[in-house]
Amino acid sequence: MTLLQFITYTGTFVFALTGALKARKFQMDIFGGLVVAFATAYGGGTIRDVLIGIRPVNWVNDYVALALVVAGGIITFLLKEGVNKFSKTIFFTDALGIGLFTAAGIEVALAQGVNQPYALIMGVISATFGGLIADIFCNDVPNLFKRGELYATACAIGGAIYLLLKQTNIDKEINLIICVVLVIAIRIYSKRNRLQLPNI
Amino acid sequence: MTLLQFITYTGTFVFALTGALKARKFQMDIFGGLVVAFATAYGGGTIRDVLIGIRPVNWVNDYVALALVVAGGIITFLLKEGVNKFSKTIFFTDALGIGLFTAAGIEVALAQGVNQPYALIMGVISATFGGLIADIFCNDVPNLFKRGELYATACAIGGAIYLLLKQTNIDKEINLIICVVLVIAIRIYSKRNRLQLPNI
Amino acid sequence: MTLLQFITYTGTFVFALTGALKARKFQMDIFGGLVVAFATAYGGGTIRDVLIGIRPVNWVNDYVALALVVAGGIITFLLKEGVNKFSKTIFFTDALGIGLFTAAGIEVALAQGVNQPYALIMGVISATFGGLIADIFCNDVPNLFKRGELYATACAIGGAIYLLLKQTNIDKEINLIICVVLVIAIRIYSKRNRLQLPNI
Repeated sequence: MTLLQFITYTGTFVFALTGALKARKFQMDIFGGLVVAFATAYGGGTIRDVLIGIRPVNWVNDYVALALVVAGGIITFLLKEGVNKFSKTIFFTDALGIGLFTAAGIEVALAQGVNQPYALIMGVISATFGGLIADIFCNDVPNLFKRGELYATACAIGGAIYLLLKQTNIDKEINLIICVVLVIAIRIYSKRNRLQLPNI
Repeated sequence: MTLLQFITYTGTFVFALTGALKARKFQMDIFGGLVVAFATAYGGGTIRDVLIGIRPVNWVNDYVALALVVAGGIITFLLKEGVNKFSKTIFFTDALGIGLFTAAGIEVALAQGVNQPYALIMGVISATFGGLIADIFCNDVPNLFKRGELYATACAIGGAIYLLLKQTNIDKEINLIICVVLVIAIRIYSKRNRLQLPNI
Repeated sequence: MTLLQFITYTGTFVFALTGALKARKFQMDIFGGLVVAFATAYGGGTIRDVLIGIRPVNWVNDYVALALVVAGGIITFLLKEGVNKFSKTIFFTDALGIGLFTAAGIEVALAQGVNQPYALIMGVISATFGGLIADIFCNDVPNLFKRGELYATACAIGGAIYLLLKQTNIDKEINLIICVVLVIAIRIYSKRNRLQLPNI
């Protein structure tokens, strides 16, 4: 297993949990929960793959992906607790997830010959569009576009720094850690200080 | 015309009718009706093709597909009756449609080298995501994720049995009929007995 | 820059403005505004590319596309006026945009070996599905399917005439102008006379 795969799987599991809890909020059954969990976990990477033209998309034929989502669904089902109880945990694991997915998305895009500005966009899409698709599936107003703390912006800043540091001699793993820590830090800082982007 | 094509066209026409009636419920004009009919009929197969990487997607350049959807739209337009009147008929034709599309989706996926668990997923997507896209187009809460009788689950069970029987010497046509009858039976049984999956 | 590129960029900028103003209506921040602007401008062409199988989709690695959307977002941000003030201007620029995108979408589809009826469909998708995706992102009832003045129908008529005139010796640029003028004329005529398609 490469580092990129390990990152993706960790983020995936976290996102699957978030998606399954979201499905519970909308009173779905187990099937709906698994679909929303899958969409949250793999939606962003799927959109990235379709836009870049990677085919089939990354998760097809991947048993680990399937196992992670099913595990996330089963754990959520067994816990039988509301989202609120885990909201603090989810905030951190989600921030970890989007940090990891931003870096992973950038790497996949660069490997396919995408230039740097669009690789950054693909990183942000990888990190945030899974939640967007889950919101669309739930017919909910997409959280991604609601005014609130910095979310996609945190990914964009973390990803931009990651791309800049890639030009230097910095170790790949250290660069990844910087990116993730930066995304988490921006998320926490913006939540604490109610930092928002101005309205369009 | 192969058996697979014949199946797909039959299911398509049924789905086009369902989609056009749905558009009427949302008071759309003829254009909206045709788009929702097309989305209902071809949306699931389109998502499957995009995910697997079949390009162009199956219906491009297919005059029969276009004719079936337009015919479904025109018939709906001429009948000028509400959905309620046909709700029983639609229940059966839709159950027939999702049974056929599950098997067809599995065959297409296997032919592209998709492994069995994901071929099953692609079968369920082929059968159910057309209605999902139509619901999203109508800004409706997706029926697919509402708690209710078994729907996608019926496809999943029918498709799993279809995959199992494919390993045996059973005739292809007979296997297909078993899959479709099973899906219809599960649909009817779950509706009669208010059988539901547990909440996530 | 070819004529097709010039057309696409002009339409893009107009659509980016429309999208950014739409995001303002939904009280999004700058990030949301840029995403909705991008979706409005490139969504239709993206769906067309994914369906036909052009990969990566047309805007990946295109700095001009990015600059046009960002410029549209910044101009909207600086103007700080509501949509209403520009509604008349937007009506015309949008009619211009969908006329240009219909012709451009047809040309792209034909170049990929799509037959004429589906090239027309791809033209209409190119012109109208960007707004559809933007509406879905905003969790709004898609304007495209609301009963109202002729919109997609205007594109379909303009595109059909464009395809017919392509068979003749007519100059390519003149044909394009005829298509655009026709779409704008149908839009104005249908608005003035409250011309609508019948309900399905």
